[in-house]
Amino acid sequence: MTGLLYVVGLGPGSGEQITQEACLALTQATDLLGYGPYVARAVALGAAKTAIAHETDNREELDRARHALTLAQQGRVPVVVSGGDAGVFGMASAVFEAVSEGPSSWREIDIRVLPGVTAVLAAASRIGAPLGGDFCVISLSDNLKPWDVLAKRLRLAAEAGFVIALYNPRSLARPDQLDRGFAVLRDVLSGETVVIFARAIGRPGERIESTVLAQAEGASADMSTLVLIGCAQTRQIERPGRPPWFYTLRRIP
Amino acid sequence: MTGLLYVVGLGPGSGEQITQEACLALTQATDLLGYGPYVARAVALGAAKTAIAHETDNREELDRARHALTLAQQGRVPVVVSGGDAGVFGMASAVFEAVSEGPSSWREIDIRVLPGVTAVLAAASRIGAPLGGDFCVISLSDNLKPWDVLAKRLRLAAEAGFVIALYNPRSLARPDQLDRGFAVLRDVLSGETVVIFARAIGRPGERIESTVLAQAEGASADMSTLVLIGCAQTRQIERPGRPPWFYTLRRIP
Repeated sequence: MTGLLYVVGLGPGSGEQITQEACLALTQATDLLGYGPYVARAVALGAAKTAIAHETDNREELDRARHALTLAQQGRVPVVVSGGDAGVFGMASAVFEAVSEGPSSWREIDIRVLPGVTAVLAAASRIGAPLGGDFCVISLSDNLKPWDVLAKRLRLAAEAGFVIALYNPRSLARPDQLDRGFAVLRDVLSGETVVIFARAIGRPGERIESTVLAQAEGASADMSTLVLIGCAQTRQIERPGRPPWFYTLRRIP
Repeated sequence: MTGLLYVVGLGPGSGEQITQEACLALTQATDLLGYGPYVARAVALGAAKTAIAHETDNREELDRARHALTLAQQGRVPVVVSGGDAGVFGMASAVFEAVSEGPSSWREIDIRVLPGVTAVLAAASRIGAPLGGDFCVISLSDNLKPWDVLAKRLRLAAEAGFVIALYNPRSLARPDQLDRGFAVLRDVLSGETVVIFARAIGRPGERIESTVLAQAEGASADMSTLVLIGCAQTRQIERPGRPPWFYTLRRIP
């Protein structure tokens, strides 16, 4: 193997929800590559003080991946960072896409992907156990797939009875995408279906709101929000003076 | 709040893939409750030496949850442990189901669910970036839902174009369930669709095998295996003398 490259998931936010191996990789970094806020978080989480921070816009993922692979071949130890898990709508796919299209020597690099706690797991843990049954994870990001693909996936996921987690639910380019998604789901699911907006879980500004599908509005979400839509087995537990818990029954009769 | 109860995901196996907050909770435990192998792992990961280990069979989840809630009300600090993430086919759902059916005073217990790296994330990280697109997570466990529900979910997930992760793919009671699942998927997906068997990721005996759907056999999996079925955007990168990488394109044209 020639060269070493880490692709690291930093977890949802707080330094207590990163894995130990991810922390260790940060301390070995000569270069940190990622979206600005994640690079800043990597520094705060204990990355080597000598590491060079390469902060880039979040839309330049393939360029960033090629840069990291080039650095790895030069004998440096680049660490590409993502929030949550790098394999879930993070940098891991871009890195392998770059390898696939790049010089064959990149296939000899020792690429170590270190998993992390992705947003849906962190959000669910704050709410109770809404993922108790089968579930799916869908990105509503505006620039990666056509609307008809997204609408079909939402409809089939609802018909399948999955709990549905929506990442990247809002964007400037398509501010109405989430409302259109709710409309698709209303065609299939009961208006009483639980909908949870989990914002900035584990970070400053954390906020959790719950409603039902009939009343859900896209404006309740921003790009830091994870939207969770329950299924027919999702239940609510009322608590006096505190937010309710939600859980999904493991068993389907 | 009266009483404190932790529900902790230990991660996939190695001590390096547990979160720091999960480790800290283990050190505070007066009682550890869980399936025997997970309790043993919690002890190895640094649980308080004074903690009482309550190891039970994995089919007694509701009884175990009630036991933990009772201990919490008595002022002890029980820690219920699961492998991976406790919210994904782990103990979290059983704990809240027990609360829902139990005395109202249980709703005053401070229940802290601490998320972990669930198996699909750990497996994906070893393979490349197979979860680069939308995906779903389905348990094939034999005793929690009827076969027709499972078959419908598999078919709809394949039609939706999700990468599909199957947990608990084999059991003694229904040894042919995975083969029946592959048959359902073959009706929808190309025979060339990537299928990966990821066994005991992060633990002794780790083994990763890949094939295509046309040739996939249930006998390649046991209960420690995570089965991953790719989608039309899943790609393979050949490497000389090493196992291939797999990744799923982020973009759908």
